[in-house]
Amino acid sequence: MTAQPFTELPADRVLKTVRTYRQGPVLTVELNVPEEGNAVGDAMLDDLLTVLDDQDPDVRVLVLAAAGEEFCLGGDRREFPRHLDDDPTGGGIRVSGAKALRVCEALTTHPAVTVARVQGRAVGAGVGLLLACDLRVGVDTATFRLPELALGVPPAWGGLLPRLISEVGVARVRELILTARVFDAQEALALSVLHKVVPAEELDAAVMAWAKPVVRRPAPAVRVTKAMLNSLAAPTRLADVSLFDPELLSAVLTQQRAAR
Amino acid sequence: MTAQPFTELPADRVLKTVRTYRQGPVLTVELNVPEEGNAVGDAMLDDLLTVLDDQDPDVRVLVLAAAGEEFCLGGDRREFPRHLDDDPTGGGIRVSGAKALRVCEALTTHPAVTVARVQGRAVGAGVGLLLACDLRVGVDTATFRLPELALGVPPAWGGLLPRLISEVGVARVRELILTARVFDAQEALALSVLHKVVPAEELDAAVMAWAKPVVRRPAPAVRVTKAMLNSLAAPTRLADVSLFDPELLSAVLTQQRAAR
Amino acid sequence: MTAQPFTELPADRVLKTVRTYRQGPVLTVELNVPEEGNAVGDAMLDDLLTVLDDQDPDVRVLVLAAAGEEFCLGGDRREFPRHLDDDPTGGGIRVSGAKALRVCEALTTHPAVTVARVQGRAVGAGVGLLLACDLRVGVDTATFRLPELALGVPPAWGGLLPRLISEVGVARVRELILTARVFDAQEALALSVLHKVVPAEELDAAVMAWAKPVVRRPAPAVRVTKAMLNSLAAPTRLADVSLFDPELLSAVLTQQRAAR
Repeated sequence: MTAQPFTELPADRVLKTVRTYRQGPVLTVELNVPEEGNAVGDAMLDDLLTVLDDQDPDVRVLVLAAAGEEFCLGGDRREFPRHLDDDPTGGGIRVSGAKALRVCEALTTHPAVTVARVQGRAVGAGVGLLLACDLRVGVDTATFRLPELALGVPPAWGGLLPRLISEVGVARVRELILTARVFDAQEALALSVLHKVVPAEELDAAVMAWAKPVVRRPAPAVRVTKAMLNSLAAPTRLADVSLFDPELLSAVLTQQRAAR
Repeated sequence: MTAQPFTELPADRVLKTVRTYRQGPVLTVELNVPEEGNAVGDAMLDDLLTVLDDQDPDVRVLVLAAAGEEFCLGGDRREFPRHLDDDPTGGGIRVSGAKALRVCEALTTHPAVTVARVQGRAVGAGVGLLLACDLRVGVDTATFRLPELALGVPPAWGGLLPRLISEVGVARVRELILTARVFDAQEALALSVLHKVVPAEELDAAVMAWAKPVVRRPAPAVRVTKAMLNSLAAPTRLADVSLFDPELLSAVLTQQRAAR
Repeated sequence: MTAQPFTELPADRVLKTVRTYRQGPVLTVELNVPEEGNAVGDAMLDDLLTVLDDQDPDVRVLVLAAAGEEFCLGGDRREFPRHLDDDPTGGGIRVSGAKALRVCEALTTHPAVTVARVQGRAVGAGVGLLLACDLRVGVDTATFRLPELALGVPPAWGGLLPRLISEVGVARVRELILTARVFDAQEALALSVLHKVVPAEELDAAVMAWAKPVVRRPAPAVRVTKAMLNSLAAPTRLADVSLFDPELLSAVLTQQRAAR
């Protein structure tokens, strides 16, 4: 297994924060900024979009992995203040948020079966990335946290909240979000955040145990099944948008004032 | 902590069945008819509406508690026959039902984080009240029951059924409703009816363990997060209303006949 | 308890694959092709429709049972190839699929409370039939499997997938479908596929323990409660149908080509 550059990409689209490996029908996409705990910044979102949009029908399984100790420590916390300094009306934050949404969408609707391979900590946006995958396996020492409220932001990243509610159930999600507490791999399994928990040395074997039968299955059946599962996820994003009216009204007016 | 009357209320709005306490940003609303197991009658619905509609932005956490041995034994069973005696076409029952809906709505959409503090029995409408709260902690000896069918009524009180389905899942709810069986605190925890179960002497500490971090969190993030959670609850109330056509047709015709 | 033929049925509607028993307000409908593991073919769908459409308001509980060792081994695997031989554009498969949908609908919306009585293996369409019932009890040795993908078909039978998601939750369902693995009665209980697991000798007692109180309950309350539960199931079938556009387009064009 060797890292395989996207040789067909134009020079300005060289991947900087993500590495890819190809083993026949299995493509591994690895978050690769281990020195920063794989924090998700705009550069990583761009790289993920590049990889996810370049779809090869021969890829039947896509593994989302992470280099180093942590799966992903969440959003890059230096970027939001920088965006606000550049544009106090929040322009940079909205661009970044729209990218996050496209990355999570691209993962969820990817034609391959997607598998998250989780070790260490998964925090905030990191939970969003792994939840966007079809199947999730984690090391028994992995931990999870949704710290948004404690950081003063709502859990509004990449469609994380509706996805979380649809995967885990709203009662548990409300408690995890309002308390912002850490939960471990066993609880993640009970909550369906993970589908399987294994010792570290069995992580790759667990990924391959899922990948192998999928690869053998007739492609049309898998393709239509994923379309069915994804189509049925749509109503879980329905919401009573009128509840946002006070926020939207005030957001636009404060931006206009800030822009004067 | 002293009971604090709503001094600003007009004299005819004095609370009779509910008591309130204020501790800084934490408001406790206590059902207070212990001699009747805090059964919910029209007077209590009126009192709850008065308290819930009088929103103070400095209240960050609202605790729904109950005086005495029981949390709430359900609807006041003497009121429905009395309403039917007064108006055989069901006018009084519909007025009471509309109030119940407004109380549960006011709890669910309250801008503060709401916490149910549960001891003893929670029955029927009592389950509806606690489920309308964001977070629920119960004593390990608490018990729960949805006895509606056994009493000859459908579980049509305050939006209890869609809320229950969205919090617990429809498969379990169907069994609880059709059997009308008692379930204990441990099962309530497994079903997400409760988020935490503690010994009686730790109940207040558990409430405060949730309240304290919420109080410290930036208000805008909490406010938008509650709007997100509530907005996403809307589709869980969608229903195929055509299934009610036979009931609605027959309801109106029997009422017209009864009103002659 | 004696098998009771539908004497009022015209001679050409004699049941061949299903048997019915009546015990006062309890009607048992038994899949009765034990020598083929009660595989569901077109004949069985026709028989089930005949029984389910002939509604007697005095039937308060309908038990779906199965003769022999297995509950139901799934669709009859000889019929689909035969249908395709007869009509390569899939006409026979669509007729059969429409029947399956009507049978599952008729079970779910049946005015009686429906109880699945499960022993042995329940596979594919067999899981669809039992899930369409309100309450499900299984023997502790029963096993379950959704093998569709392994057989090269999507889980598109009788509305099985949306029902499964609404009963079990999408995260677990995705794993069961993508792996096509066997799961046992204890896991089925944890997933809410079953509501109760008992030793074989207690199976009938468990069915009657549910049936007896239902039979005593006021019919109007039960009727309206079932309408409420069914009406709230409607949005769980909502889907983003645009995701099927590529399939629908290609399906019609390949059929037109095949029909030349």
